[in-house]
Amino acid sequence: MSDELRVIALRGLPELAQGDDLGGLLAEAAGRVGGLAEGDVVVVAQKAVSKVEGRIVVLADVTPSERARELAGPDGDPRHVEVILRESRAVVRARPPLVIAETRHGFVCASAGVDASNANGPDTLVLLPLDPDRSAALLRERIRELTGIGPGVVVSDSFGRAWRQGTTDVALGVAGLVALRDLRGARDAAGYELRSTQIAVADEIAGAAELVMGKTAGIPAAIVRGIDVAGDGSGADLVMPRERDLFRG
Amino acid sequence: MSDELRVIALRGLPELAQGDDLGGLLAEAAGRVGGLAEGDVVVVAQKAVSKVEGRIVVLADVTPSERARELAGPDGDPRHVEVILRESRAVVRARPPLVIAETRHGFVCASAGVDASNANGPDTLVLLPLDPDRSAALLRERIRELTGIGPGVVVSDSFGRAWRQGTTDVALGVAGLVALRDLRGARDAAGYELRSTQIAVADEIAGAAELVMGKTAGIPAAIVRGIDVAGDGSGADLVMPRERDLFRG
Repeated sequence: MSDELRVIALRGLPELAQGDDLGGLLAEAAGRVGGLAEGDVVVVAQKAVSKVEGRIVVLADVTPSERARELAGPDGDPRHVEVILRESRAVVRARPPLVIAETRHGFVCASAGVDASNANGPDTLVLLPLDPDRSAALLRERIRELTGIGPGVVVSDSFGRAWRQGTTDVALGVAGLVALRDLRGARDAAGYELRSTQIAVADEIAGAAELVMGKTAGIPAAIVRGIDVAGDGSGADLVMPRERDLFRG
Repeated sequence: MSDELRVIALRGLPELAQGDDLGGLLAEAAGRVGGLAEGDVVVVAQKAVSKVEGRIVVLADVTPSERARELAGPDGDPRHVEVILRESRAVVRARPPLVIAETRHGFVCASAGVDASNANGPDTLVLLPLDPDRSAALLRERIRELTGIGPGVVVSDSFGRAWRQGTTDVALGVAGLVALRDLRGARDAAGYELRSTQIAVADEIAGAAELVMGKTAGIPAAIVRGIDVAGDGSGADLVMPRERDLFRG
């Protein structure tokens, strides 16, 4: 447990396109703020990762199904909903045109994480990475290759929550850090067994990074420094297994 | 939007009891790490606030109802469940002995936020503050009185989430800061209207603070410095109104 945590914005990344060396750009951006230190975690927005991985769909290429038309309602775009359905394992709730879906990874989120964007041409959609843990691991290795330091990497996205207003950023994929800190059996300072025994530290790290990233400022990444979270976690650690889930489906 | 956020642990608070001057103790602890700065946010764990407010129940004084016995199942303590029911407006899900409840404030969380503790004697329970916004406002005023700086104050607790494993700390009460940053109508760097339009910044601040607080280390508070969140929010801003909630009850 550290006494001070720092969260440092990584500015100056260009508009990204498929095939761009995101790891290299992150290493450069880190260099501009004094470089990486051992134990650092680099948080990078899913949208940036998805763009370089080519996870883009052009709306004009999509033919909506009957089900997509139905869920889109009068106000939604059935082609957009069609893409959401293709990314989904199940629809958890729908109130046209809002769709809360379980993605093929098991994440439950609005629109299965499918995001409108005109960044790569008009009327395109950005999908979640196919394997966010793998995306994180590749960025970690690329940064290690360039800087000698393999930071923890978190691929983050903004998710809504049941019962609470507003989004918080959470970790979709992680590499080189624990995702869930397990305190089962641990006791508090007064010797009492803890009620909250698993802490989603990677989600809290993603949320902390969001505070300096800012959706409107075009800052897609940040360094989180000063907490000892080195480990071997996975984004899947943060997904409630279906059989334990009281709120799925 | 700042380029660097700092989160500083506030150590050295004593074991707390009803009537203690928590604002004074926080001001002192802040003094030991260089003092407060304008714009700082002080995050303090709900349990610390509840203790000084006397929100403690002695289990031996509780007579469980039939409903409490039923929900406790063979493994739970019906007296504990009875206290949870008294703190609840509704039970959202129950799988004995686990109860997810909507508190009288509207928060949906495990055990209505009721926490076992032996800190103030054996077999006691700590309840959530009656009015966490008021708790935050009183701490803010007391700290202002002592230091000349009225920081933002967040009263935080660890909540589980639907669909995701592990808890993250969230804001129950706030004073002197925005709880929800509203970006409706804002556009991203590429000029596209944002999908995630309301950001639960007070929850992200609470989560960032958790990363240095640590449940086992007995650090009940932290300073979050470097983000411009001054404002007039409320913990209630973060509660999804029942009529818009797809996942209540």
